[in-house]
Amino acid sequence: MHTTTAEQTAALPGRSADRVRILIERFAALTEPGKGPGITRLAYSPLERSAHAEFTAYMEELGLQVSTDAAGNTIAELPGSDPRLPALGTGSHLDSVPNGGAFDGIAGVVAAMEVARTLVGQPIPTRHTIRFVAFAAEEGARFGQACTGSRIVAGLTGPKDLPGLMDGDGVSVADAMRAINIDPQGISDAVWDENDWAGFIELHIEQGSVLTDAGLPVGVVDLISGSTRIRIDITGRASHTGGTPMHLRADALAASAQIVLAAEGLAKDSRHHGTRITVGKLDVHPGSITTIPGHCQLHVDVRDVDNDRQRFSTSELIAAAHEIAAHRGVGISVEVLADASPVVLPVTIRNAITASAASLGLEYRVMPSGASHDTQMINHVCPGGMIFVPSRNHGVSHSPDELTDFEDLAVGIELLTASLVHLDASSPSTSDN
Amino acid sequence: MHTTTAEQTAALPGRSADRVRILIERFAALTEPGKGPGITRLAYSPLERSAHAEFTAYMEELGLQVSTDAAGNTIAELPGSDPRLPALGTGSHLDSVPNGGAFDGIAGVVAAMEVARTLVGQPIPTRHTIRFVAFAAEEGARFGQACTGSRIVAGLTGPKDLPGLMDGDGVSVADAMRAINIDPQGISDAVWDENDWAGFIELHIEQGSVLTDAGLPVGVVDLISGSTRIRIDITGRASHTGGTPMHLRADALAASAQIVLAAEGLAKDSRHHGTRITVGKLDVHPGSITTIPGHCQLHVDVRDVDNDRQRFSTSELIAAAHEIAAHRGVGISVEVLADASPVVLPVTIRNAITASAASLGLEYRVMPSGASHDTQMINHVCPGGMIFVPSRNHGVSHSPDELTDFEDLAVGIELLTASLVHLDASSPSTSDN
Repeated sequence: MHTTTAEQTAALPGRSADRVRILIERFAALTEPGKGPGITRLAYSPLERSAHAEFTAYMEELGLQVSTDAAGNTIAELPGSDPRLPALGTGSHLDSVPNGGAFDGIAGVVAAMEVARTLVGQPIPTRHTIRFVAFAAEEGARFGQACTGSRIVAGLTGPKDLPGLMDGDGVSVADAMRAINIDPQGISDAVWDENDWAGFIELHIEQGSVLTDAGLPVGVVDLISGSTRIRIDITGRASHTGGTPMHLRADALAASAQIVLAAEGLAKDSRHHGTRITVGKLDVHPGSITTIPGHCQLHVDVRDVDNDRQRFSTSELIAAAHEIAAHRGVGISVEVLADASPVVLPVTIRNAITASAASLGLEYRVMPSGASHDTQMINHVCPGGMIFVPSRNHGVSHSPDELTDFEDLAVGIELLTASLVHLDASSPSTSDN
Repeated sequence: MHTTTAEQTAALPGRSADRVRILIERFAALTEPGKGPGITRLAYSPLERSAHAEFTAYMEELGLQVSTDAAGNTIAELPGSDPRLPALGTGSHLDSVPNGGAFDGIAGVVAAMEVARTLVGQPIPTRHTIRFVAFAAEEGARFGQACTGSRIVAGLTGPKDLPGLMDGDGVSVADAMRAINIDPQGISDAVWDENDWAGFIELHIEQGSVLTDAGLPVGVVDLISGSTRIRIDITGRASHTGGTPMHLRADALAASAQIVLAAEGLAKDSRHHGTRITVGKLDVHPGSITTIPGHCQLHVDVRDVDNDRQRFSTSELIAAAHEIAAHRGVGISVEVLADASPVVLPVTIRNAITASAASLGLEYRVMPSGASHDTQMINHVCPGGMIFVPSRNHGVSHSPDELTDFEDLAVGIELLTASLVHLDASSPSTSDN
């Protein structure tokens, strides 16, 4: 007989690290077969749905009410003692980049599952209803735009935005949604009511090496980088590599190589301390050893915690690309795929986390996040906060080598639980309003 | 009822340009559906076989004896009056690069078909047997090595060389052969006996703009560039574009971009006049907008008419790539995929072509070929020569924009016919030996 994950983890003694290992491994098994190393469970794919189903089954076995909203986000609810109070929430996402790791997003969902188990099992009654959320489609790898599920609940992405977002195979978000029985026209039903939410805390792996290098168990996020994503198309002239003299070429790849290095140089110059610019995707056509590339497409990601510098850097890169194209006599077109501003997370939630860390005797660092997160969007609905747990392997993420110790994750979950309980106790009750 | 190509062209009046147009268009229709613009008819693919079947049917309708050899080359034979004489040959290839043009290779096969029609139809009896050849797998685009069919008949490629040549999908030449009913173990049966061949002339499009720029109808080739083909693998560290500071990156694409520009710079420096270096293929993994590329693979083609400079340039590029990799802290491995020396075509055949051009009143230029050709290999068996016809559109080739005027092609075919007749008359008969 099939043993459910909840039964398996319930049977374990009190070691949270052992339980989260089982959950992480259960989700890691849900990966596209034959797609190379690591985890491939893309946004709005059937496999992402399977992961949501796993989350649903686990939470229902704990006795929570679970539903999947019109955008594909799954929400499990543990009712509080005072139904007049808005809810507190925690969670993260279950999708991955191609050939990604087992922790990005998943760690935060597993944390939510473990918090729910603790609150139900001890039990620890709360005044506020606690909602545990698995967001859909956080990774921008497939459609260019990150945090689609949380953008929808925050009212930042609506039905009219979906058809323009395409994956590499020409499938739009709307098409992908329809293929897994989500109606793209109906997604506005998923929008959250700000009166219904008191606060949200997301646990996430750091995806950097600051905590490990400093020997700290947890980080508390104050700023989240913004991200501007652009696509650059370079059109040269495909021709025979042997028949075409060097001075008569219009080589789309040589021009693209210059743009790749210009992007890197811009991010590394003295004016751009902290800016991160990456060409993560470069497609070369026709891609034959005996043909000069006639067309290249670059996908560029520009990140910064400074709002203006993020946009100026993007403009400078586009200007540099145009100059390179003009100099080489190749065509260029540039399209902005997504543009999210950096956010400052409110001090109220941060203080609840740092106070809880102090009471647990945990050293912490207040630090920015270079990566985008669902909390960036949720912060438009209610105050958001984030807890980082250490990443090993030099902080590598979006890679099969992504690694977080289960012991470290368990410590982060302990802090998350304490922070939610702290917020539950400290938030003004409706009678105080 | 189906009208055969031979019936269609036979029904036409004497205009050679009209007949070659029909043949070029007939072959152009044989392209991989849904693979984008231009012609995609790859080496040792079922579509290449269909093109050979078209050639076979046409030549058989002219009354020639046609057979396909153990390497997939198709040879049509028109017996000469003196069976003791070795044969004269003409022909080219029927495969294409991905998204290539309608003329590269095909023009030379169509020329052979039109020469055969003229010799049979007039008729013009010859002392030597004339063989019309459609070589297999000339393009190196699929397996990295060019001229596989002609290399096999020249004894330059044998059964033991095949398993190591792989296409982008991991299919070896041997596997591809088996899939179209060619036994890779039996290819040595295709080797030509040098006593059986007196000479070979290939007509080909120039794939450059020298003839068009000079307003000349034909070129006569003296040298064919060699080509060294290498694969460079760069291994960096895949990681999150937001979480990873610029100074902690090992970006495989940034390193590759430097190599692309180093290759271009090397070919363009003052010591390398005439050297042509191209990175035609660059694959980026995992290829996600939010992941720093962890692995890139470059395919590089180095061409030169100078033997030593070709090899020195390759060594210099490999050294530069190693230096870039060391400086950036990324891994590198380099493999030589193919290495063909430049050749000097013998003056005997060239003189027959230039004498024929003079007698036809055609201006010509003696010129080198930047591209590799089957004649480069056949020249190991018997004296080889080449006739170039003008390429339009700036000499673009290996591209859907590849273009040669049918009138120009007809003039080249007239010269090819005259040159073969000239060789037939001037070659020593066996009684002279």
